[in-house]
Amino acid sequence: VPLIPELGSHLIAAGGKRMRPLLTLAGARVAGATADSAGEAAAIKLATAVEFIHSATLLHDDVIDESDLRRGRDTANALWGNEASVLVGDFLFARSFELMVEAGNLDVLGRLSAAAARITEGEIKQMAITGAPDTPIEDYLEVITGKTAILFAAAAAAGAEIAGGTPADVSAMHDYGLKLGLAFQIMDDALDYAADAADMGKNTGDDFVDQKITMPTILAWQKADDTERAFWQRTLGAAQFADGDLEIAQGLLEKHGAIAASLTAAREYAASASATIVVHCGTGPAASIGSALADAAAFAAARTS
Amino acid sequence: VPLIPELGSHLIAAGGKRMRPLLTLAGARVAGATADSAGEAAAIKLATAVEFIHSATLLHDDVIDESDLRRGRDTANALWGNEASVLVGDFLFARSFELMVEAGNLDVLGRLSAAAARITEGEIKQMAITGAPDTPIEDYLEVITGKTAILFAAAAAAGAEIAGGTPADVSAMHDYGLKLGLAFQIMDDALDYAADAADMGKNTGDDFVDQKITMPTILAWQKADDTERAFWQRTLGAAQFADGDLEIAQGLLEKHGAIAASLTAAREYAASASATIVVHCGTGPAASIGSALADAAAFAAARTS
Repeated sequence: VPLIPELGSHLIAAGGKRMRPLLTLAGARVAGATADSAGEAAAIKLATAVEFIHSATLLHDDVIDESDLRRGRDTANALWGNEASVLVGDFLFARSFELMVEAGNLDVLGRLSAAAARITEGEIKQMAITGAPDTPIEDYLEVITGKTAILFAAAAAAGAEIAGGTPADVSAMHDYGLKLGLAFQIMDDALDYAADAADMGKNTGDDFVDQKITMPTILAWQKADDTERAFWQRTLGAAQFADGDLEIAQGLLEKHGAIAASLTAAREYAASASATIVVHCGTGPAASIGSALADAAAFAAARTS
Repeated sequence: VPLIPELGSHLIAAGGKRMRPLLTLAGARVAGATADSAGEAAAIKLATAVEFIHSATLLHDDVIDESDLRRGRDTANALWGNEASVLVGDFLFARSFELMVEAGNLDVLGRLSAAAARITEGEIKQMAITGAPDTPIEDYLEVITGKTAILFAAAAAAGAEIAGGTPADVSAMHDYGLKLGLAFQIMDDALDYAADAADMGKNTGDDFVDQKITMPTILAWQKADDTERAFWQRTLGAAQFADGDLEIAQGLLEKHGAIAASLTAAREYAASASATIVVHCGTGPAASIGSALADAAAFAAARTS
């Protein structure tokens, strides 16, 4: 069916960091898999499956966000329509399970299918808190754990598990992935109010107009006076936007140090991820991959766009 | 997440024939599983997984068809929006794989995940032939094999396989399910131009206004003169509909015997399904379940709405 490779090429050309499949491959190395080993071959199948799951969620996110015409991006959805994005997403999801079956380990399959269910629960919960600026920070953390961190954790742990790692290997990779995923999503959410649009591949303030509730706005809400809360209720709460509102929002975030506090939280998760994996790998044969993973976490938390 | 049970209840209340999970349970019986056996318990998990996959595709179909405002039905999509239908569909799909993992058989997992991929390929191919009244009948059969018959076949075969059936049991159930699925979809497509709207739960002529190409219109196109072909091109091809066009279309289908020929094709597939399973079950211990399956196929092909 020609549409599938066409849309697939569009997704590949769009780039992306491929962080999730890299975590799977790194997990196999932490578990002792060497280049071209059977463990690595199985991990490559899983890494592909993990990226397919991620791509499927991106395609479906495009459909969900379609009503927002403020974005000028050429999403797959904009180019081929809702039908194609829904169906090709479903196809990638189904193919990911075929690849997992080929990898041949039921425990790993259980781990990744549970993660896939948690992703959608996280996204549904995100819908539920949309437009509620008084959302508690715990609910936000639950949302990003589901929609982002769980797949990072499962991808990392699955790589160690398929390569025959010890329970300690699997657990260390899971913890590393979970914390890295939290750091990654909090960075994304903070930079959405700060980043240069060209660097980030999306527009500054997308979350604002989408009424998405993220760490910066929760922190600013918590410190807001009545006038400020009325502003957040009108904009994030009621979607009544006027020219200049984004700049006012950015000013309030700045006034209360909400971006800086979010970036600090992200860096703390990243530092904890690094510590977890460095301690686990110690000075053993996996020391160099442990060190590389620690660097990767620090790098992810240091980006400014 | 409350939305999931809410939307789930809506789906359950909407009814449906539950044919796919029944095929899985029947497959286990053909393979010799008795009531309350371990084989039946595993088959129940698979039957649930199969119905989840089917429900997920229905939710996603609602999103895909949303642009058609001529339908007055309260779909989940209409009640909760695109977001909810996409995400709850994804959730059901992920949960179905968790259930399959619990059932604990990699071969069965491979069979059902391959079927899930084929469903989406079938639906994508259906998109590709939409609005093309000169579609060859082979392409139509390929579409309905993918979007309907493959899941019937996989559901039936998986039940036999999980219960420890012989390769002949699995193969017989696969063939039975495939033919029953073809019969079922051809009946659906024929009755769309004939059925009483209240009985069928959808409106007569839905496929016509959606420009879906099905067996009746393909057969009528093949026998059409130039004037008739211009009519099909204007309506199914170009979506330029005028009052009374559905009645004209029904008249052309009647003139060329296209509904009757479609119903005959469906009954032949159903008869072949019956013969397959009766021959396989013979006079052995599965004779009564074989006979029940044969009756079910005959019943499915005899419905008039």
